Amino acid sequence: MHLREQLSGQTQSPGVLASGSHFAPSNIALCKYWGKRDAALNLPINPSLSVSLGHLGTQTQLTPIDAAADEVWLNGVPQAPSSQFSTRLLRLLERLRFPEEPKLRIDTHNSIPTAAGLASSASGFAALARALNESFQLQLSDARLSVLARLGSGSACRSIFHGFVEWQMGQRSDGLDSHAIPWPHTWPQLCIGLLKVDASVKAVDSRSGMQRTLETAHLYQSWPAQAAADLQALRQAIAEQDFALLGARAEHNALSMHATMIASWPPLLYWQPDSLQAMQKVWQLRQQGLPLFFTMDAGPNLKLLFEAQNRQQVEAAFPDLEILQPFVDEI
Amino acid sequence: MHLREQLSGQTQSPGVLASGSHFAPSNIALCKYWGKRDAALNLPINPSLSVSLGHLGTQTQLTPIDAAADEVWLNGVPQAPSSQFSTRLLRLLERLRFPEEPKLRIDTHNSIPTAAGLASSASGFAALARALNESFQLQLSDARLSVLARLGSGSACRSIFHGFVEWQMGQRSDGLDSHAIPWPHTWPQLCIGLLKVDASVKAVDSRSGMQRTLETAHLYQSWPAQAAADLQALRQAIAEQDFALLGARAEHNALSMHATMIASWPPLLYWQPDSLQAMQKVWQLRQQGLPLFFTMDAGPNLKLLFEAQNRQQVEAAFPDLEILQPFVDEI
Repeated sequence: MHLREQLSGQTQSPGVLASGSHFAPSNIALCKYWGKRDAALNLPINPSLSVSLGHLGTQTQLTPIDAAADEVWLNGVPQAPSSQFSTRLLRLLERLRFPEEPKLRIDTHNSIPTAAGLASSASGFAALARALNESFQLQLSDARLSVLARLGSGSACRSIFHGFVEWQMGQRSDGLDSHAIPWPHTWPQLCIGLLKVDASVKAVDSRSGMQRTLETAHLYQSWPAQAAADLQALRQAIAEQDFALLGARAEHNALSMHATMIASWPPLLYWQPDSLQAMQKVWQLRQQGLPLFFTMDAGPNLKLLFEAQNRQQVEAAFPDLEILQPFVDEI
Repeated sequence: MHLREQLSGQTQSPGVLASGSHFAPSNIALCKYWGKRDAALNLPINPSLSVSLGHLGTQTQLTPIDAAADEVWLNGVPQAPSSQFSTRLLRLLERLRFPEEPKLRIDTHNSIPTAAGLASSASGFAALARALNESFQLQLSDARLSVLARLGSGSACRSIFHGFVEWQMGQRSDGLDSHAIPWPHTWPQLCIGLLKVDASVKAVDSRSGMQRTLETAHLYQSWPAQAAADLQALRQAIAEQDFALLGARAEHNALSMHATMIASWPPLLYWQPDSLQAMQKVWQLRQQGLPLFFTMDAGPNLKLLFEAQNRQQVEAAFPDLEILQPFVDEI
């Protein structure tokens, strides 16, 4: 079945394409996605949970063009069709388009601060999914938009929503039940501090990293059960606004994910010496009584977690920190 | 039953104590011991494998003295009876001595280079076990000496032997089958490079670290199976003198052990930024074709593994390295 029909549940035929411009927020996982049970469909081995970053994310505009090939622009700069960036976007587009339909220009604008060390593929594919939905007039539900975004990049399924977002891993082999759902809770005091660490060694991309972990890390066997338990604890922490529990579980979850990478062969270590130094500093401050935690993705950067009442103390310790307040910053 | 009777298998009565002076080598584990199934008896959750360090280790002399209390000396300096060092040694001594028997002077001399970052408790308790055996005239077999050493410090049971040494974890609740056995193989070309990294943060001792890992790291569940598999692979590597296999498995095993620590809560990270830098350097050199691996214990130091024909290249990359050749250095 054509992907358009599978997603929309309706017979599809080639039509006139519309223009559309949509935004999707970046997100930071508190319970990480690490490991695919289906690499083609980006179906995860464990459920995950993130918080979306309000107005930081990607704005994507689609415009039908009278041309022989699609055009891809990033932050106002045309991208080579063969670049990795173009290839990934066009692959998703091609899965939706009928051959008779016109080419498109894809304009991607990221409002993620370049110093932040945040991946842009999550917000990028979520914004693209929303724009594709409008261009092809699919009228997909948010859940189906989340499925479509997931096909571009796993964690993009969470960027369809704002606030706390759970990616339900699902069970179906076609992946239609593997999508995000928003949680109703807010947490106005929650702050995220982006701490950028320079990476002098080229990192292994997440997709290959996950694969290597799955194939070579014995310890990975214990990961899915832990992620499920972490998600439960985080649910409780958010329901009860228990920051110490939230921070501890998010940090434990992130370090456990990195532990599965470190236990891979060849070893997969995304940390830099400066990452370690920052981690030690967080632990030191916590020992001194400051409720400060961190999470890390497949890279050397730390994302600090704290509450607004401690912002000054955290800023004093980390002067270069870029601080977000996901439930307060303008969405 | 009194420990002396349990170990010797014979009825024991108070007697005249002899003097005795014995040496035991330090050892470095290629398959790590991490986790106790019985904390009082130091019974491990997994089998382990080490290589002993020839003439680097501990010489311990026991002398009966006419005094009201035992005396403990370390490298010629008297130790307070309440110090951690004295307390641990005297605890083992007290388990063997009948109340009527005289006090002893324990003289411990470590020939482990102070810059090496090597633990001395393994060789220390192995040498003490040998000296106690002579003082109390127990005539224990090497296997029983290994059991006695284990009661002082788990990894000490391996320091009863030279060369490659396996600690068979055993199954009995009294621990009499949990002791080391020597392997018949030698590997003259095998080199170990001791790379000392300064620890600015006070480390958690191994005993507490193991306990925390057991109680809080989900990923630890997968450790025993991995250690068993690593031991098998190392057995093959040593039988076939396959250095690439030996190095890879030893490094993978060590990193997996550290991964279980990192996945503990609160996080247990023995690495320093300089440890990370050294690890990255090893990986870089390996990528350039140099067969160089490392192992690490519960501390920030690296122990490099390589063969004699690459000694010059390794020394050029790590000028401060202290290099041992366990099967060639005078024993």
